[in-house]
Amino acid sequence: MADTAASLTPEAKFDLISRNLDEILGAEELKKTLAERDISLYWGTAPTGKPHVGYFVPMSKIADYLQAGCHVTILLADIHAFLDNLKAPIELVKSRTKYYEHLVKAMLSSIGVPLDKLKFVVGSSYELTPEFSMDNYRLASIVTEHDAKKAGAEVVKQVDSPLLSGLLYPGMQALDEEYLKVDAQFGGVDQRKIFTFAEKYLPQLGYKKRIHLMNPMVPGLQGTKMSSSDPDSKIDLLDDAKAVQKKLKKAFCEEGNIENNGVLSFVRYVLFPISHLRDGKAEFVVSRPEQYGGNSIYNDFESLQKDFADKKIHPGDLKASVAVALNRVMDPIRETFASEELQKLTLEA
Amino acid sequence: MADTAASLTPEAKFDLISRNLDEILGAEELKKTLAERDISLYWGTAPTGKPHVGYFVPMSKIADYLQAGCHVTILLADIHAFLDNLKAPIELVKSRTKYYEHLVKAMLSSIGVPLDKLKFVVGSSYELTPEFSMDNYRLASIVTEHDAKKAGAEVVKQVDSPLLSGLLYPGMQALDEEYLKVDAQFGGVDQRKIFTFAEKYLPQLGYKKRIHLMNPMVPGLQGTKMSSSDPDSKIDLLDDAKAVQKKLKKAFCEEGNIENNGVLSFVRYVLFPISHLRDGKAEFVVSRPEQYGGNSIYNDFESLQKDFADKKIHPGDLKASVAVALNRVMDPIRETFASEELQKLTLEA
Repeated sequence: MADTAASLTPEAKFDLISRNLDEILGAEELKKTLAERDISLYWGTAPTGKPHVGYFVPMSKIADYLQAGCHVTILLADIHAFLDNLKAPIELVKSRTKYYEHLVKAMLSSIGVPLDKLKFVVGSSYELTPEFSMDNYRLASIVTEHDAKKAGAEVVKQVDSPLLSGLLYPGMQALDEEYLKVDAQFGGVDQRKIFTFAEKYLPQLGYKKRIHLMNPMVPGLQGTKMSSSDPDSKIDLLDDAKAVQKKLKKAFCEEGNIENNGVLSFVRYVLFPISHLRDGKAEFVVSRPEQYGGNSIYNDFESLQKDFADKKIHPGDLKASVAVALNRVMDPIRETFASEELQKLTLEA
Repeated sequence: MADTAASLTPEAKFDLISRNLDEILGAEELKKTLAERDISLYWGTAPTGKPHVGYFVPMSKIADYLQAGCHVTILLADIHAFLDNLKAPIELVKSRTKYYEHLVKAMLSSIGVPLDKLKFVVGSSYELTPEFSMDNYRLASIVTEHDAKKAGAEVVKQVDSPLLSGLLYPGMQALDEEYLKVDAQFGGVDQRKIFTFAEKYLPQLGYKKRIHLMNPMVPGLQGTKMSSSDPDSKIDLLDDAKAVQKKLKKAFCEEGNIENNGVLSFVRYVLFPISHLRDGKAEFVVSRPEQYGGNSIYNDFESLQKDFADKKIHPGDLKASVAVALNRVMDPIRETFASEELQKLTLEA
């Protein structure tokens, strides 16, 4: 991939970096930097629960970033997880952090991303240093409760009696940008308020404002946000093939209705990009019994969506086809996790 | 003093420790511990402004504690000062911390307390360690915003848009008890809510609930709390003799009125205890011209207060006598700070 990147123009790199994103804050800065050199960025994940297949969305973007020559760091934000995970003891968070690291690596491998280009960093390896802690206090002395609360509103668990931890979360995430020495942070659009918070406050500490890259949120199978508390709304990365079929069968997907259609969105944001990455071209096959017209091959989302809107694709066929494609991506991950060592870790986490 | 302490009964030690205090939380625990061994305690001061003569109140208690065989640590809480001092850069806080250390030592020397029995600790020497920082996060994950705000209400500067720093302040002060490995914390009654906060939360982290010793707050010269923003309400430790006379002249002190009388309170909580410590017996001299009856010597506050209530002491004579006694205590401090090195430090701070 490094070779590919070397042959790309800054404009081509910008296109790779920005494709499929929902929003970029600092696009001009990004272009300016790319004209001079490759950029560094980080994506953070707080190991709080069971990762679901929605994680393939940032994973496929990470593949793009690497292809564009970016230096990518994946932050396993263990302290953030602890802060946002109320009753989880720190030992559990440590097991989960290892578990997440293995899962993220398995996901990236399954879509053909070379791991040797990536840097994995555990948050507690630098977030407990005196320098970071002092910066945290410096930040606390200029950030209002109001701003901290607003910044975390979409990311931090909202509870009746809010805890201090939720107020510290956005500031630490802002400092991560400085301590990981990156040009940009990448995350879902649900991070937008934390990103603008970081843009506001880092310069007040004398640090550079960073670029922010945001991927869209993929709706859950019920058409709403994927939620850990509603098991039917999401497919866990280690669900077996049958569970995948079953959950898809239950998914909300009305014939001809393309609004709030979690199944269609999943094809758009996950299956098409993955197929493009892995096979070199985007392809999605809708399998249909011969008697109903046989298989159809789609090479772009728009045609698929149009046929679904025109009722040329039946929801049952779409769901079954998604299950096939998804299980193909998940197979190598399940295989990796079948090892004794990872079975043990899965139980601990 | 150690020799004196060795000859004291646990009961006598308890009396020394508790005299002139406003309140003790954990008195039974204190008695139980004293029956077995001497206790350790700390008094913290956040170097935020110019220390005033009200500091003699905790100083005279520290003398009592040492006499009772306590192991006393004085915490120069530089990070707390930073957190509560909004715009003060950390470099200024560092100068102020040194300045406070010199002033506290000069005060203790001026009232005859041997410095070699005391341990001075600067907060940042341990409050930035990974262990402390992790405990700070652990605490943040169980403390509600509501509790943190309530705890700091009397100690943290209250502003229109409250800052995060004010919410971190009580938790850090609670952790100080654990990290300084003390049996008790000593402070003014204005610390009460922080003390009960510490009693509530330390056990939730698996740490011991500490004993809390509280001295009364001495009203300012205007009868209200000594305030840094009202220069006439307080006498700075380095005010010259003339400034002391002048501020006392302006003090609120009505003939025969013993309510909200800052001058009388000062004699009670500062001058009597200091005289007792320094001279071995409590003594306060009201100087009066011969024609108005000449000097009167008082050996306890009650007689002085009664004579003032009965209008046997004129406010002008009381004020002038307080100025004389106070200047006698302040002279050695002013002398110490006349050195070139400390003059420089005073300017920096």
